[in-house]
Amino acid sequence: MVSVSEYRRDPVTGRWVVVSTETPRPTDFEHESVTVRPDPHCPLCEGHETMTPSELWVDRPAGGPNGPGWTVRVVPNQSPLVRVESPLERQGEGLFDKVTGVGAHEVVVESPHHGETLATLGDDAVARVLWALRERAQDLKRDTRFRYFLMFKNHGAAAGAALAHAHTQLMALPVVPREARDEVEGARAHFAAKERCLYCDIIRQEEEDGRRLVVRHTAFTALAPFASRSPFETWILPRRHASRYEDVTMGDCHELARTLGEVLRRLNKALETPPYTMVIHSAPLADGLEFYHWHIEILPKVTRSGTLEWTTGFHVNPTRPEDAAAFLRQVTV
Amino acid sequence: MVSVSEYRRDPVTGRWVVVSTETPRPTDFEHESVTVRPDPHCPLCEGHETMTPSELWVDRPAGGPNGPGWTVRVVPNQSPLVRVESPLERQGEGLFDKVTGVGAHEVVVESPHHGETLATLGDDAVARVLWALRERAQDLKRDTRFRYFLMFKNHGAAAGAALAHAHTQLMALPVVPREARDEVEGARAHFAAKERCLYCDIIRQEEEDGRRLVVRHTAFTALAPFASRSPFETWILPRRHASRYEDVTMGDCHELARTLGEVLRRLNKALETPPYTMVIHSAPLADGLEFYHWHIEILPKVTRSGTLEWTTGFHVNPTRPEDAAAFLRQVTV
Repeated sequence: MVSVSEYRRDPVTGRWVVVSTETPRPTDFEHESVTVRPDPHCPLCEGHETMTPSELWVDRPAGGPNGPGWTVRVVPNQSPLVRVESPLERQGEGLFDKVTGVGAHEVVVESPHHGETLATLGDDAVARVLWALRERAQDLKRDTRFRYFLMFKNHGAAAGAALAHAHTQLMALPVVPREARDEVEGARAHFAAKERCLYCDIIRQEEEDGRRLVVRHTAFTALAPFASRSPFETWILPRRHASRYEDVTMGDCHELARTLGEVLRRLNKALETPPYTMVIHSAPLADGLEFYHWHIEILPKVTRSGTLEWTTGFHVNPTRPEDAAAFLRQVTV
Repeated sequence: MVSVSEYRRDPVTGRWVVVSTETPRPTDFEHESVTVRPDPHCPLCEGHETMTPSELWVDRPAGGPNGPGWTVRVVPNQSPLVRVESPLERQGEGLFDKVTGVGAHEVVVESPHHGETLATLGDDAVARVLWALRERAQDLKRDTRFRYFLMFKNHGAAAGAALAHAHTQLMALPVVPREARDEVEGARAHFAAKERCLYCDIIRQEEEDGRRLVVRHTAFTALAPFASRSPFETWILPRRHASRYEDVTMGDCHELARTLGEVLRRLNKALETPPYTMVIHSAPLADGLEFYHWHIEILPKVTRSGTLEWTTGFHVNPTRPEDAAAFLRQVTV
C-alpha cells in the first residue's frame, strides 16, 4: 500500500509536519482573495495625517511634518498592545514570571495611496518601506530594555489585518518570543557542533538541490522550506550570512525589494491574491551574529488552520513544498 | 501612566504571552455558538454503522458487531492522515529528516445520538468515552513504532470539526510533536533542578493561591493557566502525580468525567456554547513517569487567533486568567 503522507522535520526548530504526497492544485483551495476596498475615512491615507499620532519617521520629498507629500510614514499604533512609557519591572510570583507591559508598537504605512500593496508598489517604493523598518529598529535599539523586534505584516482581513491600507507592524519587546528563542537555540546547537550557520547550510543545500527553490537573485534566495507548515509557505533569505535585519544597507533593501516583490507577485498569481502573514525573523538583541541568520517567512492563508495546530505544534500540510515551488517558478508574472 | 498589559511566562515551555489588564466581559466576544444541526446522513449516528469502517472498539450493552445498541464506538478515520499499514522508514536527506507516514488515526464516537455533547451526556457516559480512549491507547501502545498519542477534540466547525456529531480523535505517531517535546523538556529541567514535578508544583501553588482555580474536586483540579494564550483557556490536571493518560483506571475516568463535564458546562454558560479545541497532553511513550504530568488543555475559540500567533509563538490574550476563572466559578450550572 502506498503511503499518502510523510513526516518531515524542520532542521532549525525540530518541529514535525505531516506533508501530504497527493498535492491538490492551487485552484483547489477555497479562500478569500484580498481586495482593498475604498475607505474615505482611512486613517493611513495621504491627507488624513491628523487621524494618526504624530509621525516617528517619514520619507517626505515635499511638504511639512504630519502633512501630505510623503512616500512612507511610521506612526505609533493607536491601540498599542504595549507602551514605551511603562517602567520595566521583572517580577516573580512563586513559579511564575511576569514583566510589565513595556514596549513599542509602531505602524509603517507603506504607501500614501489606499489601494497599493507590496506586490504593486514597485521596487524603489518597497525598498523605502524596508529601509523605514531598519531605521526605526536602529532607533529603538538604543533603548536597552528591549530584547527583540517583532516585525510583521498581516495582509487581508482573513490574515488578521484590521486596516486594509498596506502597513507593517513593528513591536520592540523586553522578552524574546518562543519561536525566535527556539530558532536561535536550534541554530546555536548546529553552530556548536559544526562551526557553520545552519541557515547558510540550508541555502547551500537548497540551491544545489533546486526542487524547492522559488527564485534566486544575486543577494537573496526564496524557497519553499522542506518542512513547510502550510501550503506555499515561502522563506526569503539573504545569501550572504547576516544575523540582524536592522543592519541591512540601502543596497540590501533594494535587492530585497526585488526578490520580495517577485515572490509576492508569484504568490498572487498562483493563489489569486491570497491573504498572508509575513514575519521578519531577526536575531534577539543579545544574541546571534555568527550562528543566526535573519530571514523572512511568508505564510499564505489558503486553508483554515485551527487552534489544534498551534496548541500541539503539529501541522498537516496538504501541499508538498516541491510542488508549491515548481508551481511558483512556472507562473508568469 | 498605568500599564495596560503585562508579559507572562509559561513556566513549562517558557513561552511569553501578553495579557491585557483591561478584560472585556465574556459577552463582548463575537463568536459563533455551536449548535448541532440534524443530519440524516451522519455516518456517526446509531443505525448508520455501515457508513464507517468496522469498529475497533465498542461499548455495546446489546446487539451485534457494527450494528446498533452501542454507547461508545471507535472506528478508523475514513480519511486518515497517516496509515498503520505503511512501513516505518526513517531517512535523512542532507540536513533534513523524514519518516514515512505510518500511524493510526481513529475516531471515538462519543454517543449514538446526534445532538449530544460531552457537556450534556452525563458523567457515566463521559466516563465511557474516556475509557474508550484509554483502551485504544493501551492497544496501540503494543506497536513499538509509535512514540506519541495525539488525543484531541475539535468542537464546532469554527474549531475545525468536519462532522457535527460528537467525536474525539486519536492519532498514534512515530514522532513527538513539538509542543509535547517542549513540555517534556521544560518539566525535565525542573525535575533535574528540584526533584519535583513542575505540574505538581503548579497545582500546589494554584490551589493555595485560588485566584485562577475554576473547580477543584477530589481527584482533579481545573484552572486558568497563569500565562493563558487565549480567553478562558482551562486546564484540567490529576491532583495526584501521573504521567500517562493511558494508565487511568475506570475510577479515574469517573472522577475526570465529573470535572470535565462541569468545566464544559461552565464554559458553555459563560461563553454561550463556544467552539473549542481540547487536547490531552500525555507523556511520549519513551519518556515521563517521574517528571511529566498528564493533563487536558481546553481552548475556547472566541477570538480570531491568526497565523501570526503560531508562527511567532507570541500570543496576545485580552482576558486576564484571574477574571476568566472568577467568572467561571460564579456562573450557575
